[in-house]
Amino acid sequence: MNISPTVWVLNGPNLNILGEREPDTYGYDTLESIENKCISIADDLSLKIEFKQSNHEGELVSWIQDARESVAGLAINAGGYTHTSVALHDALKLLTIPIIEVHLSNIYTREKFRHHSFISPSAKGIICGFGANSYVLAIQALHSLIVEK
Amino acid sequence: MNISPTVWVLNGPNLNILGEREPDTYGYDTLESIENKCISIADDLSLKIEFKQSNHEGELVSWIQDARESVAGLAINAGGYTHTSVALHDALKLLTIPIIEVHLSNIYTREKFRHHSFISPSAKGIICGFGANSYVLAIQALHSLIVEK
Amino acid sequence: MNISPTVWVLNGPNLNILGEREPDTYGYDTLESIENKCISIADDLSLKIEFKQSNHEGELVSWIQDARESVAGLAINAGGYTHTSVALHDALKLLTIPIIEVHLSNIYTREKFRHHSFISPSAKGIICGFGANSYVLAIQALHSLIVEK
Amino acid sequence: MNISPTVWVLNGPNLNILGEREPDTYGYDTLESIENKCISIADDLSLKIEFKQSNHEGELVSWIQDARESVAGLAINAGGYTHTSVALHDALKLLTIPIIEVHLSNIYTREKFRHHSFISPSAKGIICGFGANSYVLAIQALHSLIVEK
Amino acid sequence: MNISPTVWVLNGPNLNILGEREPDTYGYDTLESIENKCISIADDLSLKIEFKQSNHEGELVSWIQDARESVAGLAINAGGYTHTSVALHDALKLLTIPIIEVHLSNIYTREKFRHHSFISPSAKGIICGFGANSYVLAIQALHSLIVEK
Amino acid sequence: MNISPTVWVLNGPNLNILGEREPDTYGYDTLESIENKCISIADDLSLKIEFKQSNHEGELVSWIQDARESVAGLAINAGGYTHTSVALHDALKLLTIPIIEVHLSNIYTREKFRHHSFISPSAKGIICGFGANSYVLAIQALHSLIVEK
Amino acid sequence: MNISPTVWVLNGPNLNILGEREPDTYGYDTLESIENKCISIADDLSLKIEFKQSNHEGELVSWIQDARESVAGLAINAGGYTHTSVALHDALKLLTIPIIEVHLSNIYTREKFRHHSFISPSAKGIICGFGANSYVLAIQALHSLIVEK
Amino acid sequence: MNISPTVWVLNGPNLNILGEREPDTYGYDTLESIENKCISIADDLSLKIEFKQSNHEGELVSWIQDARESVAGLAINAGGYTHTSVALHDALKLLTIPIIEVHLSNIYTREKFRHHSFISPSAKGIICGFGANSYVLAIQALHSLIVEK
Amino acid sequence: MNISPTVWVLNGPNLNILGEREPDTYGYDTLESIENKCISIADDLSLKIEFKQSNHEGELVSWIQDARESVAGLAINAGGYTHTSVALHDALKLLTIPIIEVHLSNIYTREKFRHHSFISPSAKGIICGFGANSYVLAIQALHSLIVEK
Amino acid sequence: MNISPTVWVLNGPNLNILGEREPDTYGYDTLESIENKCISIADDLSLKIEFKQSNHEGELVSWIQDARESVAGLAINAGGYTHTSVALHDALKLLTIPIIEVHLSNIYTREKFRHHSFISPSAKGIICGFGANSYVLAIQALHSLIVEK
Amino acid sequence: MNISPTVWVLNGPNLNILGEREPDTYGYDTLESIENKCISIADDLSLKIEFKQSNHEGELVSWIQDARESVAGLAINAGGYTHTSVALHDALKLLTIPIIEVHLSNIYTREKFRHHSFISPSAKGIICGFGANSYVLAIQALHSLIVEK
Amino acid sequence: MNISPTVWVLNGPNLNILGEREPDTYGYDTLESIENKCISIADDLSLKIEFKQSNHEGELVSWIQDARESVAGLAINAGGYTHTSVALHDALKLLTIPIIEVHLSNIYTREKFRHHSFISPSAKGIICGFGANSYVLAIQALHSLIVEK
Repeated sequence: MNISPTVWVLNGPNLNILGEREPDTYGYDTLESIENKCISIADDLSLKIEFKQSNHEGELVSWIQDARESVAGLAINAGGYTHTSVALHDALKLLTIPIIEVHLSNIYTREKFRHHSFISPSAKGIICGFGANSYVLAIQALHSLIVEK
Repeated sequence: MNISPTVWVLNGPNLNILGEREPDTYGYDTLESIENKCISIADDLSLKIEFKQSNHEGELVSWIQDARESVAGLAINAGGYTHTSVALHDALKLLTIPIIEVHLSNIYTREKFRHHSFISPSAKGIICGFGANSYVLAIQALHSLIVEK
Repeated sequence: MNISPTVWVLNGPNLNILGEREPDTYGYDTLESIENKCISIADDLSLKIEFKQSNHEGELVSWIQDARESVAGLAINAGGYTHTSVALHDALKLLTIPIIEVHLSNIYTREKFRHHSFISPSAKGIICGFGANSYVLAIQALHSLIVEK
Repeated sequence: MNISPTVWVLNGPNLNILGEREPDTYGYDTLESIENKCISIADDLSLKIEFKQSNHEGELVSWIQDARESVAGLAINAGGYTHTSVALHDALKLLTIPIIEVHLSNIYTREKFRHHSFISPSAKGIICGFGANSYVLAIQALHSLIVEK
Repeated sequence: MNISPTVWVLNGPNLNILGEREPDTYGYDTLESIENKCISIADDLSLKIEFKQSNHEGELVSWIQDARESVAGLAINAGGYTHTSVALHDALKLLTIPIIEVHLSNIYTREKFRHHSFISPSAKGIICGFGANSYVLAIQALHSLIVEK
Repeated sequence: MNISPTVWVLNGPNLNILGEREPDTYGYDTLESIENKCISIADDLSLKIEFKQSNHEGELVSWIQDARESVAGLAINAGGYTHTSVALHDALKLLTIPIIEVHLSNIYTREKFRHHSFISPSAKGIICGFGANSYVLAIQALHSLIVEK
Repeated sequence: MNISPTVWVLNGPNLNILGEREPDTYGYDTLESIENKCISIADDLSLKIEFKQSNHEGELVSWIQDARESVAGLAINAGGYTHTSVALHDALKLLTIPIIEVHLSNIYTREKFRHHSFISPSAKGIICGFGANSYVLAIQALHSLIVEK
Repeated sequence: MNISPTVWVLNGPNLNILGEREPDTYGYDTLESIENKCISIADDLSLKIEFKQSNHEGELVSWIQDARESVAGLAINAGGYTHTSVALHDALKLLTIPIIEVHLSNIYTREKFRHHSFISPSAKGIICGFGANSYVLAIQALHSLIVEK
Repeated sequence: MNISPTVWVLNGPNLNILGEREPDTYGYDTLESIENKCISIADDLSLKIEFKQSNHEGELVSWIQDARESVAGLAINAGGYTHTSVALHDALKLLTIPIIEVHLSNIYTREKFRHHSFISPSAKGIICGFGANSYVLAIQALHSLIVEK
Repeated sequence: MNISPTVWVLNGPNLNILGEREPDTYGYDTLESIENKCISIADDLSLKIEFKQSNHEGELVSWIQDARESVAGLAINAGGYTHTSVALHDALKLLTIPIIEVHLSNIYTREKFRHHSFISPSAKGIICGFGANSYVLAIQALHSLIVEK
Repeated sequence: MNISPTVWVLNGPNLNILGEREPDTYGYDTLESIENKCISIADDLSLKIEFKQSNHEGELVSWIQDARESVAGLAINAGGYTHTSVALHDALKLLTIPIIEVHLSNIYTREKFRHHSFISPSAKGIICGFGANSYVLAIQALHSLIVEK
Repeated sequence: MNISPTVWVLNGPNLNILGEREPDTYGYDTLESIENKCISIADDLSLKIEFKQSNHEGELVSWIQDARESVAGLAINAGGYTHTSVALHDALKLLTIPIIEVHLSNIYTREKFRHHSFISPSAKGIICGFGANSYVLAIQALHSLIVEK
C-alpha cells in the first residue's frame, strides 16, 4: 500500500489574519481558503498537506525542527521573520528535504528592508508575487522535487 | 448611556522589571506605578486604560491583532523589539485606530542601533524622553485623537 | 508675590506661513493659532509663553543664546535646520534648562534626510506627529520638567 | 471560434548554450528541451508559447516593445542583463500585460551582484531556483493571470 | 555550612538539536553531553550548574531577568538571537553578575551576519570556536570570576 | 490692457561677485551683465524679470515665500545652499508656479558634494553648464511653461 | 556659399515608442513630433538637424564615433544607458565638439538609480525636465556653443 | 613710511559666548581675551589684527568677500558652519591670501560629524586643539606666510 | 604534421578607434598595429592569432561562446564593458581554456568606476598598464599557459 | 621517554609594557607575571611554554613562520596588529597546528576599529576579555586541541 | 640648578629623504634643516630637542614607550603610519605628557585615505600644512603646554 | 664598454617561504627558483637582476629609497603590505624609474581585502595571476620600458 508523502506549509506572523489586512498588497483570500485550494491541488498530486501558522518565531523554529522526522517537503512564508530571523535560517539549514520560500506579494517592489531574506539561502527555490496562487505553485513545485528525488 | 473608549498600552521586553533596570536611563518608576498614573489621568478624560506587557514578540503581535476589535487607541513601547521587529511593523499597519510610539528615554541620544524604529512608520506620533511622563503625554494625545476622530 | 516662569517656543524657517503650506502634511493651523492655544494652556499652568519665528539660522542661534538668562524652558521646532544645523546643535548644548524638540509631522515617515536631527542630542524629549497638538503636549511636558526641577 | 492567447518567453545572454554551461548551477536541460516542455504544458492550458533568445540587450528591448501588440503575457529570464539593464527595466514598465521574472537558479544563494534585479519592479511575480521547472511554473502562473484578467 | 554558587548556562534556538545539525560546524556532541561534561567540571570547582534551552527569544529574556535573584554567574550561547536581539541585549545589561558569551564555532570565519553580536557589549568575556570545550572553558572562567569577585 | 507676467531670478551666496571668482569655472560675466542679457531676452518674450541676490539662506527663504503672491515663475541658482539647504527645499515646495534650477557650471563634473541638490525635487527642470547662457535658456523655458500653463 | 553646420540628436532605448510610454512621466509627444519641432527651430538658426534612435548600446557607440567627422554638435538622450554605460562614456570623451545631455523628465525626482549619469562628465551642459522642450532648448544651446566656438 | 599688514580673524556661531560654554571642551577664555592676546602678539610682529564674529553664515560669507580688498591674511574658526557650509567653502576659494583654519578643541576627538571640514580645502594650514593658544599660533603662522610671500 | 594552436584576442567598444582617442592615456598605436606586433610575436611562438573587435556587448558574448570550439586561449580587453557586463562575466565562466584580461592603461590609477572588473573573476591572470605591450605580454603568457597545459 | 609538546605564545606591540598601560582596560598583570602563571599551568599539563614579544610586525611574521618546525600549538595576542595586518594573516594561514587568538580585553566593547580581526580567520578559537586569565584559558584550550589531535 | 625639559620629535617613514621627495607637496627643507631650525627656536625657549626618524613602525612604537621616562613633550609626524597604525595609537595612549601631531602638508586636501589619523585621538592638538614651519609651531605649542602644566 | 642596467625585484612578507605555503594558491616554486628563472631571462635581455625579500615593512621602504640611486627599474610583490601600507605607497611615489606591481595569484578572485592595492597608483603596470611566470613577464616588461626610455 502506497502512502502519500506529507508536505508542511508553515506560515509566520500576521498570516492568521490574511484577507483582512492590506488587501491591496495581499489580496482577499484568507489563510483557510488558501489551505483549501492547496489541499484540493495536493489531492490530485497524491500529496498530504498540513498548514501551520504562528506569530512566535520560536514556535516556527520548533516546527522546522519537527519537520526532520516525517515530512517530505516544506513550503514556508515566514512573514516578517523572513527578513530578520537568523534562528529560522539556522533551523532550515538542518533540513535535507526540499524547502520552498513563498510570498504572497512581490517583496522586491516593497520597502527596502524586505529585499533581504534569511530564508532564501536554505531554499531550493522562491515563488513570490502571485497572491494565493504562490502557494499553489509551491505545492506543484514541491511535488516535482519530491517525485524527482 | 455613554461608554468610555478603551485604550491599550502595550509594553515590550524588559519593561516588566522597570524601576530596577538602569535607573539613570529609565528612572525609578515601575510599570505598575506608571499604569496607576495613566489610569488616574484617563479617568479625568473618560478613557479606559489597559496595560499589557510581554517579553514575547509573538504575543505582542497577537495583542495588536486583537486590538482591531474593541480598542479605540493604542500606545506602544515595544522596548528592544522597536528596532528589530518587522512582524510588529506588519501587525501595526493593520490597525486603523491611532497609534502612538512611546519611549521612556530619548532614544536618539543612545546607541546607534536605537535610532531606527520599525514602529514609527505606523505611528501617528512619537513621544520620547520624558520617563514615566511619556506615557501620560501619550494618553493625553490619544484622547485628543480619539475625540477629534 | 510669585512670578510665572517663562517658556520660549522657537520656530525655524517656513513656519511663519504655516496653514498655507502642504496642509496634508502640516495641517491648517497657523503659527498664530497654535500660539494662542499654547498661551491658553499655559495660563492654566501658570507659565508665560513667548513664540518666536525666524527664517535665519543665525537669528535662531542668537535667541538660544539669549535663553540662558531668564527663560525656564525651551520648545523648539527648527524646521529645515533640524537636519542640517551644527550651529543650533552647539547653541543648544550651552543651555541647562529643559529643551523639547517639537515637530508637527512624524518626521520618520517622510524623506530619509529628515530622519536625522541635530536637535535631538540636546533635547530632554521629543514630541512629533500631532500637528498643533505637538506644541500643546510640549508645553505640558515642559511644565512638568520645570515644576519637578 | 476561440483563439489561444499567446505568451512570449524571452531569454537573455548565454541561455542559448544552456545545458553545456555550469551544469551544477543550471542543470543539463537545453533551452530547446525547456521550450518543448513548456509547449506541452501550454497545449493543455490552451496557451500558445513562443521562445526567443538573444545575447543583445537592444534586441531584448525591441522584443519587449513588440510584445505590446498581440501578446497576452510575458515570462522573462534576462540572464546577466537582469542585474545591469535600466533599458530593460524601462521597456518592461511600458507593458500592461502580466510579466513573470524567471531564473533557473536561486540567485539569492549566488554572488552578491546577482541579488539585485532591474526586472523585479515591473514583474507581477518571481519564480527562481527550480531549473527547467521554473519555466513550467511560470507558464502555469501566467495562465492563471491571463484567465483571471 | 558553605553553599556552592549556582551558574546558569542559557542556550538559544536550535541548540536543542545539537549533534544532529551541521556536525562539520558544530561537532557531534549533544547539548546533554555538553551539560554532563560541564557538571563534572563544575563539581570539582564547587559550582552548581543549570542548563536551560529555548527556541523563544522571550523565554530567554525572562530567564535572564530571573537570573538577577540567586545566580552567581551566567554563560550564554544565544544561537541565532546573538546577532539580532536587542531584547536580549537589554536584559543582559540589567545583570551585575559576570556574563560569558559562548559559541561552539568561530563565528568570525562564518557568514558576515554572524560577525556582529548583541551579547558582547554586556559580556565580561567571549569564548568561541572550541566546540563543546567552549562551554568547559566558560565554566572555568566563570569560576575564576566568581571566586575573584 | 495686458500685463507682462513677472519672473524672479534668485541668486544665492557668492553670486554677487561673479566674474571675479574662479573664471575658469564660472566665466567672466558679472551677475549684472547676466541680468541685462536676461532682461533683453525677456522683453522680446513679454516677461518682466527681477534679479535678487543674497548671501543669507534665510533671506532666500523669505523671497521664495514672497513669490507666492505676484510672481509667475522662478529661476533659482542657490549657489552653495543648493547642496545643503533643507530650508530652501521646504520653501520651494510651497510654490505652485514653475521653478527652474540653474547652474553656471556642470555641477556633475565637480566635487562629489555638488552632485546632490535640495532644489531639484521641487524644480520642473534643470539647466546647467552653459555659463551665463544657462540663465537665458531658463528664461526661455519659463516662458514656455508660463504660456503653456 | 555658406553651409549650415550639422547637429546630431542621438536617442537611446525606448525613445522610439515615446508618446505611448508612461505619458505622465514623458508626455504625449512622439520622437517624430519632437524631431519636427527641432527641425523647425533649427531652420531659423541655420542648423541642420539629424535624429537617430537605437535600442542598441553598441550602435549608439558607433554613431558617436562617426560624429567625429562632419558633425558640429551633439545632443544625446541616452535613455536607460545614461546610468549604466561606460562604453558611451568612453566614446563621448573622444569628441571635441560640444555635447549636451538631454532628458525629458527631471531625473533627480525619480528612482535613485537615475541620479547618476555616465554622460554628464563629457557634457558641456545638461537640460532636463522640460519634456519635448528639453530638446528645443538643447538645439538653442548648441547653436550658441557652435557660433561662439 | 611702512604700514602693518592687516589680518582678519573671523569667528562663527556661538564663539561670542566663549568662556561660558562647555569650558571642559573650550576653556575659560572669552573671545575678547583671546583677541587681546592676539593683538599683543601681533604688535610684536607688526601685524594689525581685527576680530569679527557672527552667528550668521551669510554675514561670514560677506566678510570673506570683503577680505579680497585690504587684508593680508585670514584666520577663521567657523564654528558649527565648518562642517556644513558649502557657501563658506566657495567664498574662501575666492581668496588668494593665506587662510588658516583654527579650532579651539581637537575636533578629531569629538563627534563624527565634526571630522569633516568644508574650510580645510581652501586653507593653507590647520591648527586645532590648543584652546586660546590655537589663535596665537595662527597669528604666528600667518606672519610667516605673509612675510615669506 | 603539427598545427599551431589558435588564440583569439577580443576587443570591446571604442578600441576600433585606438590611436586617435586620448593618446595620453592609450598611446598612439592603432588596433591594427598592435595586431601586427602580436602576429609577429606569435609566429615565433608558433601560435595563430585572430583579433576581433565589436562595440556590441552581445556580439562579444557570442564570440566568447564560439571560442569553446577551436580556440586554445583567449585574451580580452573588454573596454567599457569590463566594468558593467555580467553577461560577459557569465560567458567567460563557460570557457575552460586560459583567459587573460588585458588593459592598455593602469585602470587602478583612473576613475573609481574602472577599479572593478567583471572579467577578472574568470581570468587566469591580468596584465595592464603597458600600452600596446600589454597585448604582447598577454600573448607570451598565453603561450606558456597553453604549452604548460 | 616522552617529550612535552611546545606551545608558543606570541605577543604584539605594547604588550611589553603591560601592567603599566591603561590598567582599567588591561589589568595590573605584567607580561612576565602572565608568563609565569601560564608556565605553572602548563607544567601540570605537560606542555612547554615559550613567550615571545615584539613591537615589529615583521618579527612576528618571522616567528609564525618559524613555528612550522617544532611547535605543537600557538596562542597569539597580536595587539594593534590584530586589526591591520594582512601579513600576519597570511603567515598564520601557513600553519597547520592549532592557533588561538587571545585578547586581554573584550575588544567588542571598545572602539569600532577593534571589532575586525585579521587573526580570527586562521584561528581555531578566540578567547577575550578575561585579562591575564585569557592566556591561562588559551593554554588549557591548546592542551585539549593538541591532545585530541 | 635648572634643567631644560626635553622634547622628542618623532618622524616616520620617508621623512629621512625629505627635500628630495615631491617638493611641491613637502617643500625643499631636509629633515636636518628642520631639526636645526627647531633647535634654534628651542634654545630661546630653554627646551632641549631630540629628533628621531625611522621607517619601522615597531621602532616608532618602542621610542614612544621610551618617552615615558624622561621626556616632557612629544611632537610626532608619523608619515604614512599616521593613517594605518593601531600600534602607534595604542603606544601614544600610554603617555601622559602632551603630544602634538604634525604634518608638513594639509592632509585634508590630499587623497581620501589621508583624512583619517590614528594619531589624533591621543594628540592634544594638531598642526598641519605649514611645511617646515609646522614643526616650529609645534615646538612653540609644546613649550606653552609644558610651562602651563 | 657597455654596462647592463640593474633591476631590483622586491618581495614582501611570507614570500621567503614560497613553495611551502598554500601551493593551490601560490604554486610550488620557491622564491629562489623564481629568481633563477628571472636571472636566466634577464641574461638574454642584458639586464642585471637582484632579488630582495623582507618581512619588515620598514626595510622594504628603505630599499625603495635606496633604489633612487643606481637602479633602472623595479618589480615589487609587496605581499600582505600591498593592501595596507601607505608607507610603501609614499616611498614608491618618490621613484622616477618604471615600477611594476607583481602578484603570483589573481588577487581579484580572492578575499575582498585583497582587491585594493596601495602599490598600483605608483606602478606603471600590473601583472598578476601567472604564478612564477608573473615575475618573468615583469622582467620582459621592464626591459621594454627601460629600453624605450
